[in-house]
Amino acid sequence: MTPAELRTLLAAVGEGRITTDDAHARVLAELRDRPFEDLGFARVDHHRSIRQGFPEVILGIGKTPDQIATIAGRIVDRGHPLLVTRADESAWQAVRAQLPEAEYHAVARAITIRREVPPGKGVIAIVTAGTSDLPVAEEAAVTADLMGNRIERLYDVGVAGIHRVLSERARLSTARVIVVVAGMEGALPSVVAGMVDVPVIGVPTSVGYGASFGGVAALLGMLNSCANGVSVVNIDNGYGAGCIASMINHL
Amino acid sequence: MTPAELRTLLAAVGEGRITTDDAHARVLAELRDRPFEDLGFARVDHHRSIRQGFPEVILGIGKTPDQIATIAGRIVDRGHPLLVTRADESAWQAVRAQLPEAEYHAVARAITIRREVPPGKGVIAIVTAGTSDLPVAEEAAVTADLMGNRIERLYDVGVAGIHRVLSERARLSTARVIVVVAGMEGALPSVVAGMVDVPVIGVPTSVGYGASFGGVAALLGMLNSCANGVSVVNIDNGYGAGCIASMINHL
Amino acid sequence: MTPAELRTLLAAVGEGRITTDDAHARVLAELRDRPFEDLGFARVDHHRSIRQGFPEVILGIGKTPDQIATIAGRIVDRGHPLLVTRADESAWQAVRAQLPEAEYHAVARAITIRREVPPGKGVIAIVTAGTSDLPVAEEAAVTADLMGNRIERLYDVGVAGIHRVLSERARLSTARVIVVVAGMEGALPSVVAGMVDVPVIGVPTSVGYGASFGGVAALLGMLNSCANGVSVVNIDNGYGAGCIASMINHL
Amino acid sequence: MTPAELRTLLAAVGEGRITTDDAHARVLAELRDRPFEDLGFARVDHHRSIRQGFPEVILGIGKTPDQIATIAGRIVDRGHPLLVTRADESAWQAVRAQLPEAEYHAVARAITIRREVPPGKGVIAIVTAGTSDLPVAEEAAVTADLMGNRIERLYDVGVAGIHRVLSERARLSTARVIVVVAGMEGALPSVVAGMVDVPVIGVPTSVGYGASFGGVAALLGMLNSCANGVSVVNIDNGYGAGCIASMINHL
Amino acid sequence: MTPAELRTLLAAVGEGRITTDDAHARVLAELRDRPFEDLGFARVDHHRSIRQGFPEVILGIGKTPDQIATIAGRIVDRGHPLLVTRADESAWQAVRAQLPEAEYHAVARAITIRREVPPGKGVIAIVTAGTSDLPVAEEAAVTADLMGNRIERLYDVGVAGIHRVLSERARLSTARVIVVVAGMEGALPSVVAGMVDVPVIGVPTSVGYGASFGGVAALLGMLNSCANGVSVVNIDNGYGAGCIASMINHL
Amino acid sequence: MTPAELRTLLAAVGEGRITTDDAHARVLAELRDRPFEDLGFARVDHHRSIRQGFPEVILGIGKTPDQIATIAGRIVDRGHPLLVTRADESAWQAVRAQLPEAEYHAVARAITIRREVPPGKGVIAIVTAGTSDLPVAEEAAVTADLMGNRIERLYDVGVAGIHRVLSERARLSTARVIVVVAGMEGALPSVVAGMVDVPVIGVPTSVGYGASFGGVAALLGMLNSCANGVSVVNIDNGYGAGCIASMINHL
Amino acid sequence: MTPAELRTLLAAVGEGRITTDDAHARVLAELRDRPFEDLGFARVDHHRSIRQGFPEVILGIGKTPDQIATIAGRIVDRGHPLLVTRADESAWQAVRAQLPEAEYHAVARAITIRREVPPGKGVIAIVTAGTSDLPVAEEAAVTADLMGNRIERLYDVGVAGIHRVLSERARLSTARVIVVVAGMEGALPSVVAGMVDVPVIGVPTSVGYGASFGGVAALLGMLNSCANGVSVVNIDNGYGAGCIASMINHL
Amino acid sequence: MTPAELRTLLAAVGEGRITTDDAHARVLAELRDRPFEDLGFARVDHHRSIRQGFPEVILGIGKTPDQIATIAGRIVDRGHPLLVTRADESAWQAVRAQLPEAEYHAVARAITIRREVPPGKGVIAIVTAGTSDLPVAEEAAVTADLMGNRIERLYDVGVAGIHRVLSERARLSTARVIVVVAGMEGALPSVVAGMVDVPVIGVPTSVGYGASFGGVAALLGMLNSCANGVSVVNIDNGYGAGCIASMINHL
Repeated sequence: MTPAELRTLLAAVGEGRITTDDAHARVLAELRDRPFEDLGFARVDHHRSIRQGFPEVILGIGKTPDQIATIAGRIVDRGHPLLVTRADESAWQAVRAQLPEAEYHAVARAITIRREVPPGKGVIAIVTAGTSDLPVAEEAAVTADLMGNRIERLYDVGVAGIHRVLSERARLSTARVIVVVAGMEGALPSVVAGMVDVPVIGVPTSVGYGASFGGVAALLGMLNSCANGVSVVNIDNGYGAGCIASMINHL
Repeated sequence: MTPAELRTLLAAVGEGRITTDDAHARVLAELRDRPFEDLGFARVDHHRSIRQGFPEVILGIGKTPDQIATIAGRIVDRGHPLLVTRADESAWQAVRAQLPEAEYHAVARAITIRREVPPGKGVIAIVTAGTSDLPVAEEAAVTADLMGNRIERLYDVGVAGIHRVLSERARLSTARVIVVVAGMEGALPSVVAGMVDVPVIGVPTSVGYGASFGGVAALLGMLNSCANGVSVVNIDNGYGAGCIASMINHL
Repeated sequence: MTPAELRTLLAAVGEGRITTDDAHARVLAELRDRPFEDLGFARVDHHRSIRQGFPEVILGIGKTPDQIATIAGRIVDRGHPLLVTRADESAWQAVRAQLPEAEYHAVARAITIRREVPPGKGVIAIVTAGTSDLPVAEEAAVTADLMGNRIERLYDVGVAGIHRVLSERARLSTARVIVVVAGMEGALPSVVAGMVDVPVIGVPTSVGYGASFGGVAALLGMLNSCANGVSVVNIDNGYGAGCIASMINHL
Repeated sequence: MTPAELRTLLAAVGEGRITTDDAHARVLAELRDRPFEDLGFARVDHHRSIRQGFPEVILGIGKTPDQIATIAGRIVDRGHPLLVTRADESAWQAVRAQLPEAEYHAVARAITIRREVPPGKGVIAIVTAGTSDLPVAEEAAVTADLMGNRIERLYDVGVAGIHRVLSERARLSTARVIVVVAGMEGALPSVVAGMVDVPVIGVPTSVGYGASFGGVAALLGMLNSCANGVSVVNIDNGYGAGCIASMINHL
Repeated sequence: MTPAELRTLLAAVGEGRITTDDAHARVLAELRDRPFEDLGFARVDHHRSIRQGFPEVILGIGKTPDQIATIAGRIVDRGHPLLVTRADESAWQAVRAQLPEAEYHAVARAITIRREVPPGKGVIAIVTAGTSDLPVAEEAAVTADLMGNRIERLYDVGVAGIHRVLSERARLSTARVIVVVAGMEGALPSVVAGMVDVPVIGVPTSVGYGASFGGVAALLGMLNSCANGVSVVNIDNGYGAGCIASMINHL
Repeated sequence: MTPAELRTLLAAVGEGRITTDDAHARVLAELRDRPFEDLGFARVDHHRSIRQGFPEVILGIGKTPDQIATIAGRIVDRGHPLLVTRADESAWQAVRAQLPEAEYHAVARAITIRREVPPGKGVIAIVTAGTSDLPVAEEAAVTADLMGNRIERLYDVGVAGIHRVLSERARLSTARVIVVVAGMEGALPSVVAGMVDVPVIGVPTSVGYGASFGGVAALLGMLNSCANGVSVVNIDNGYGAGCIASMINHL
Repeated sequence: MTPAELRTLLAAVGEGRITTDDAHARVLAELRDRPFEDLGFARVDHHRSIRQGFPEVILGIGKTPDQIATIAGRIVDRGHPLLVTRADESAWQAVRAQLPEAEYHAVARAITIRREVPPGKGVIAIVTAGTSDLPVAEEAAVTADLMGNRIERLYDVGVAGIHRVLSERARLSTARVIVVVAGMEGALPSVVAGMVDVPVIGVPTSVGYGASFGGVAALLGMLNSCANGVSVVNIDNGYGAGCIASMINHL
Repeated sequence: MTPAELRTLLAAVGEGRITTDDAHARVLAELRDRPFEDLGFARVDHHRSIRQGFPEVILGIGKTPDQIATIAGRIVDRGHPLLVTRADESAWQAVRAQLPEAEYHAVARAITIRREVPPGKGVIAIVTAGTSDLPVAEEAAVTADLMGNRIERLYDVGVAGIHRVLSERARLSTARVIVVVAGMEGALPSVVAGMVDVPVIGVPTSVGYGASFGGVAALLGMLNSCANGVSVVNIDNGYGAGCIASMINHL
């Protein structure tokens, strides 16, 4: 039972087309019956769509293509939308063989199947400091898009040329939540957060070399932001940022 | 000009009690005239209330009691609410001497003066893993309260006795945003985020010893959360978490 | 002389089938005669079976296939069971060429030859947070199985969907010792340890990315566990956990 | 209801002195009625004694003396044994004022009240590398003793004079589980584990200077132990080691 | 012989008031005769004024007040200017007792005696992100001032209110070299460097808490600056920055 | 409009060949009209040449060959010199296909197109500790050369044979600014800075193994330099050092 | 039995004043009889003088004054020389009360009682980079002196004024082994090792601030030394360096 | 001029076969004339043989095969022995093409050409904890052998089976200096140093996984050794250890 089916059911109750007792029984059955499905190597959490408004998402790292395709099949069987992140070419081949309607987003390294989901209320702005941050930003964008949000992209507006971000003040001020993706010194979230009054999700990226330490410098920069409103997710975690932004945008 | 004054002005325009030109001139004057005040050792950012809905907040670390009291005086002079964080006893003595209406929150180590602010829409739950996390949680609570939010406290529900947090599922599910404060392994945000569908702000604390490394273990735990919806602020940054929660709760 | 042979010998003494003096001489001879065998590049510790109840185990990392196969041959010559961990394909080819009865466990990356060993007293539960933790969990399982223990596998029950592990309380409570394998934030051992009263061995894995730092986040999470009963082994050290669990299960 | 009371109850059932239904009702009531007690700043987990065989233990770090004394009072009210670790002089004064029967162990920095508990099956050996490791070792000893175990102390047998530990082989071999406490390079657990066939719990200590990094060198040494059977707890976590050793010794 | 005396001497040669041979002899004598003075615990490098245009500077950390005062006396005996950095109250008392003309700069924690030195060519701007960065900024200012430079101070213009630094573009553009002092995320040097075409010396400060790690976050931020022209000195090293800025300003 | 064109325009004003108003209009137009060019994945900062005297430089890391070639084309279209750093073979093929006049510097891994730029005033010395530091040193040299500076190379003069650098005192003393490139312990900048009175830019390299930690040892060595005048850039950042040296050399 | 007594005994054998059997018996008795003395909190290793030519040395860190004085008494009772390192004032008071002949070396923070020991063959040079390194250098000097070596001190010859160490080439070349003590960047051992052909023991010190990380920068610098002949001991471990230098000087 | 040629010359002086003036002139010429040879990318330090008794050694890391072969040729041209460390197959092909008499040591990854050198006085023992440490141990062995020392190899005697190293006490006690090579916890140097009274050079290796952090755990273990006489070189630095051992063995 997807959240949409649940809403339909409850509406039917409200309109008297179905009795309260029947509805109660159906919802209870759904909740009690198989909150997850045990595949041996994985327990697919079908319950998550009820608890969190979106089904389980598959992180491609550390799973074999076969495992990914099998889990994906079970999710799609339930009528849920599909999102596989960090999916390389071999994962994509395994999934498309099983689920022909799947799409591959090459820059974002994500596999998706779109389903109707509740729409977000406003716009999510996704901002990058540089061109090299695109894969992470696109992962956030694909995620938030699949979860029903409108996206505004502002790419390559890093602080070394501060006029680039300042010139986008108008577009930034229309967003309900902002995802800022930056590597190297990770200073952009602080500057953006100082310009707006909505929450900013900082995503440090592993872009850089030497003392960037694979994104640690950017991560520390964002955690120590002197501006209000910046919270942070793991290095390169575009998915997480897109997901949190969507949660906020659905409030 | 506080945001409230601005709203009053704009309402007067809407009702025809003041002309558009006059309103335009007054807003422009406010914006152009002294966006900050230069004290030599500090530039008080009076503009921030316009940009961000809340005036500058004073971080007590690294400032002398005199500097804190002087900046506090300038903020209060403009009719803004006051928040000083990480205020020790000497800072408190300096501020109360100048601003008798100020209050001191001993556990939170915060000084406040309350002013009318726009109310948040829902409840912010503030959750701690243990008793030792209280000072950070209270800093978040004082901050969010001052910014106009209703607060729900759930303290000492760490994962070592998982029934403690599970028994609070009902109260958690009523929150619009949740701040989870935890030291040691910092696992509580993951568990809470798996139970709800609202954003969770994780605050790692420096509670612990040995390989907790002053909160680094908890910070890493939260950054690597396997649950959706967890974003993170700096170690012991109760203020930052309260502020972000308030921003989200005002959306 | 394996521990089994030793037991047989002592039983024969107890039953009068062999004199005390003869037994004494044979045991002494065994102990004094060649406690290890010097191959130049390795000293095979045949004594370990006496001291520790299980012979030397070969860690495949940093050894050439030829070295592995040679050491394996000497261990098997003494009638000992064989365990090679972290064995890649080339090590496997070298060993099977010399020891045709050897088995290869591909997920666990382990080579084994089974011998009769004393049975463990109860069940060892092996639990993973996610699907990506399987290789490490299987290394623990192969190890504990070879050492004579019954194994119960509970895979993919991480804390983001806490109902998955809660629903397994019954199976967990039957275990005499539990191995919990988790990457990312490594929170699962704390939750499991809070549900049971038997020792939990935490195995952090290098599953994750960014600020997981190759398993350091999980390692720190487990070391800082707020629950009683959690001790920890090296990152990805499934073998070590299986071995300790077996030692405890033989007490 | 303590485990002892539970055992008495069940025995009464077995002997027909109480009906099964009555016993069932009483146990259920106990389990459902207040599994924890909410003091506002703490939730005392009275359930833990049922789940884990020993009640909640109070970690003195980060709590005020009043908080410690209040929680201690609630634990003792239920008839549980009391253990406060990392208790400084002021905590001790607050607790003794409320609980005159409490004892203070100055080297271990622990407060205890002894109650009857199920006895452990064998001996727990507690070994230190040097004299400076005593406070941590004594914390382990006080913990294990309070939990009903016989303790054997072997102090200052570090590897720089390897004959010191070798001369204790006999005493080590009588232990059912061994706690090894060491700072600096933390090598002693490896040597001890190579001599015995029982589990070794390594406790790194913050003893040392310079590149010991507050115990990190010892921690890493133990995690990388080349010997079988070594698992590790947090730096200076004598309590944790004593508790795990007791769990194993009760199996 | 100070650089000024050397210049006088060479001028005399140029004007024929002294023969080349005599000048040669005097310079050689100066160079060969005691390039440093051995006090047993210190070798005062009188030669440095010749090599580097400014005499040895005394770092107060790790020296006793007596050692500081003795070295200071020897430097002043040669007619050199005096600079003691990181001088606490006891160092100041010891130096003033011996050198009554010395001045103490309390915020900068520096002791100075001024002598005529060659003037710098332009202005050195010293910029801070916050009020807490003042002690380090003032150390840079005292240093550069003593070395003959004009100083322009721009304090508390951090990136959270980007208009504060943007409004100072005019003053920044008049500087020949800029020292930017910032703690927390250390983003200000990147923004400043993007606005100007002169070298920027970044000084990370230990201002902050938690994941600022005593200035490491700011240091990494500056090392990874995406803007051109930023080089970095040690955390809190105001002296070093002032000294380099002076060197550049004398080119 | 390049800086050269701007200078020509201003000269025409000075000579009365163009009116002030016309010049004013043209400069304003240039400044306001397209300070950057938005390619979707990148915003080419054409304004930078005005602000900083040199156009945007392309860091090859994390960009696709097509992205690099496209950005390069836009920069060259404006008449700017071109510099691509960290350009591998595929980037080079993409750029040369589009811009046949481009040159590839294999050791420095840089692509350049030379344009007339304002000359530096003196010589920039580029010094390496060892032969393995050449790629980084050559990146600095190519950068500084393209920016109009004369270069003096002194390679392989590390401190293990201190006479090598001492014998070059004469050449070092002729430089106006010195770039010192060193891996391993990174001691050379301290020694060089002690010999001269001009600024030294230290470039730590990732040359080394084991506890060099990819250049961290050299970085820390340089940050802690006991000599005056050493500032530091990121590990392997030859470009940054060359650029700063050029800025200083143009003062 | 001290090594001196042993030598006397063996000489008596050689001269026929005592029979081989008697000597054999006495030596065996000494070896077998109490190789260490168990004080409960410490096992004094009287055997060490036989094995290593010098008795156990007491590290003052982490021991109470009483423990130190008691162990010291047992060492002196056997006729051994006494060395207590890292002894603060309270340790010194406790020892002098028991052993009036003890001496306190305030800079080195060491307590000694001198006994006749075999003399070293040559001179040990002890070199420091700065004045702040004296406490560590003096610990090395006191240690080596007590162990029978001639010491040559060369203090404050750091690399920022390279002529200071170059001018001491003659004295350095007379040493049989050199201890070089340096904080900050720790470059001096490399320079010294490049000038001589004898072993150099590098001792990093915690002198410095910021990115010196308590001596880590100096430690890494020395470990990565590009010069031959440098080995390293722990940060601030003057004792260890003096001891190794003495071992080498007795070969 | 090699040290051997120098000795011959001085002997000729002593025997009157050459005048003091002639010898003086020849030595001076040698010293002054080209202490190093500048190849552009490298300065071959021919002087080092005079200063340090062994010529420059080529570290293969970071140099091209051509650079290695060219430098090797110049060293051999002077009659010096050749040592190239960390030489891969391509370096070996380049050198053998130019210097057919060169030898390749595959395990040690070293290229050598042997020349007569002064013999060491005693035996250097080279000890490893495990089989995987062989490449580093062999690098030490090849180095020390080439420098004229007798080598004793004791491999795979790690502390997990302490009897292995104890059984080698006799061979260890005949060594004049001992190199101990160990990865993982790096405990073996402490145990060995406690058994002997000669200097022990610890070489941590990158053998291990997880929390061995590429040899850091072993490095820290050795730096914190509780035994006297252990000094340490960089991770995997077999060459450095062999070289220091040779220096000591030539004293």
